[in-house]
Amino acid sequence: MRLSFLLLAALLAIFTATAQQQQWANDDPYYARRVTHFATLPPITRGDIVFLGNSLTDGAEWNELLGNRHVKNRGIVGDIIQGLIDRLDPILDGQPKKLFILSGVNDVSHDVDGDSIGRVMEKLIVTVKRRCPKTKIYLQGMLPINNDFGRYRRLIGKEQVVLDGNRALEAVARRQDVTWINLFPLFANDEGKLRPDLTNDGLHLLGNGYLIWRDALKPYLK
Amino acid sequence: MRLSFLLLAALLAIFTATAQQQQWANDDPYYARRVTHFATLPPITRGDIVFLGNSLTDGAEWNELLGNRHVKNRGIVGDIIQGLIDRLDPILDGQPKKLFILSGVNDVSHDVDGDSIGRVMEKLIVTVKRRCPKTKIYLQGMLPINNDFGRYRRLIGKEQVVLDGNRALEAVARRQDVTWINLFPLFANDEGKLRPDLTNDGLHLLGNGYLIWRDALKPYLK
Repeated sequence: MRLSFLLLAALLAIFTATAQQQQWANDDPYYARRVTHFATLPPITRGDIVFLGNSLTDGAEWNELLGNRHVKNRGIVGDIIQGLIDRLDPILDGQPKKLFILSGVNDVSHDVDGDSIGRVMEKLIVTVKRRCPKTKIYLQGMLPINNDFGRYRRLIGKEQVVLDGNRALEAVARRQDVTWINLFPLFANDEGKLRPDLTNDGLHLLGNGYLIWRDALKPYLK
Repeated sequence: MRLSFLLLAALLAIFTATAQQQQWANDDPYYARRVTHFATLPPITRGDIVFLGNSLTDGAEWNELLGNRHVKNRGIVGDIIQGLIDRLDPILDGQPKKLFILSGVNDVSHDVDGDSIGRVMEKLIVTVKRRCPKTKIYLQGMLPINNDFGRYRRLIGKEQVVLDGNRALEAVARRQDVTWINLFPLFANDEGKLRPDLTNDGLHLLGNGYLIWRDALKPYLK
């Protein structure tokens, strides 16, 4: 009797620990900090413009860059598309006015192929449309990468997957009737690589890169 | 003749590279990205409230947290006090209304002692006062650390340096007649460690930690 109770307690403890570990798509402590920070900020509201994404979104002061105080940064370094889905709740509860989405390159680095990237993104967009029918959705394509910098081992040789993923994402945008923002050509050089003057690691953007992005988004923020 | 020209060119190249490397206090690519991002955002203006600091500042969406659209985040992960001094120009050019400063724990991790932390911070504050006599300066003390998490090797055994540094910072605030915000006791448990419910690495804050910080700052943001 006592033994089976102990066994039950042990199993329960293991189950709880596993459940906690699987709470988020990423076990970097920064990820949990950012999620708990978002959860404790004043809630998203109907006038808000939410930027949902990975480190590229996380790295900018969007409301300053765009001169719009309704813009809220919901980017987290290292996030994958499933990670965005997992943390949709506090965003969708607020029924934001606009939602700008950019993700996929971390999925690429995790050996996910282009079609899968499209499938997961479609799941995300279907969820947003169902729960927030009035939210205007903007799906942004992945930026080019530049492996000449040699900083991201898991992106080496994956240039084609980024292209495949973008093709899949664009098809999702068409099928789901959301706005497609094709960022790739704005940041690519003749070789299809992220312009070396816009980055210092072949993946992330320097200040001048964010200015290009800002200009690309301006028509959608009027 | 041709050889000496080549030699001169080589020396010049080495000098330029060295100068570029020493441009900022931190050679993490993230640091340069953040500095160039700040440099390409719309300039700081007289109504602005600037938060200058390290990762603790970087990690929050301050204008959301404080409900104040004039608040601008100028935190960078890993920054030291000298790093803040090196990037004062674009902030002071704008003559901001208020400047909240928090730094020191990365200096501690670089084996800087408490008195030195005070000296460098005093240099920073003297510079701000000279160039922006109307800017209201708020000097925030370092938060406690919690080495039970064992994540920051270079902070092990440095609890006393944080205390010494805070004592030196408080003396600077008094000497320079700027507002001292004593954050340490708000985040410390009975043992003087960062409360384990507010962090997941013994150094940075979870969302509930930022709420404590927000409440501490509210009187200064009316």
